[in-house]
Amino acid sequence: MKYNVQIKVMPLKDLLDPQGKAVMGSLQNLGLQGVQDVRIGKHITLQIDANTESEARNVAEDAAKKLLANPVMEFYEIEMVN
Amino acid sequence: MKYNVQIKVMPLKDLLDPQGKAVMGSLQNLGLQGVQDVRIGKHITLQIDANTESEARNVAEDAAKKLLANPVMEFYEIEMVN
Repeated sequence: MKYNVQIKVMPLKDLLDPQGKAVMGSLQNLGLQGVQDVRIGKHITLQIDANTESEARNVAEDAAKKLLANPVMEFYEIEMVN
Repeated sequence: MKYNVQIKVMPLKDLLDPQGKAVMGSLQNLGLQGVQDVRIGKHITLQIDANTESEARNVAEDAAKKLLANPVMEFYEIEMVN
């Protein structure tokens, strides 16, 4: 069965995010009011063929740990979409 | 009040995603089975100070349209997190 897995990879909360800071500056220059913080990460969609949902989740965990996220600078969250 | 808004910006479904293809190749080289498609986009977290939730959503829509997403190549989805 095919599972659609969403992985969000974001910079750790304690780290500066220069890309986010730059975007926040641009939003203010565009005149958008009220934006107080911007953080930018990656969003990865995997389509995984597996027998069970937990098997698909394990593959996604492996992918995130081994390749997609750098634990020194980033954390990840995995979400299964039916 | 402060609203936490998540914006997902992904390459349009009809377009090739070379970054995703490269990651899929790497996952296969790592021995992960069953991954059939990978697409990679951006995940942006905004903290918005606004009076109402719909006001915060409007700011996020503006930000996505004017700066964060390129409609020729990308689509976006906005999600409010209480």
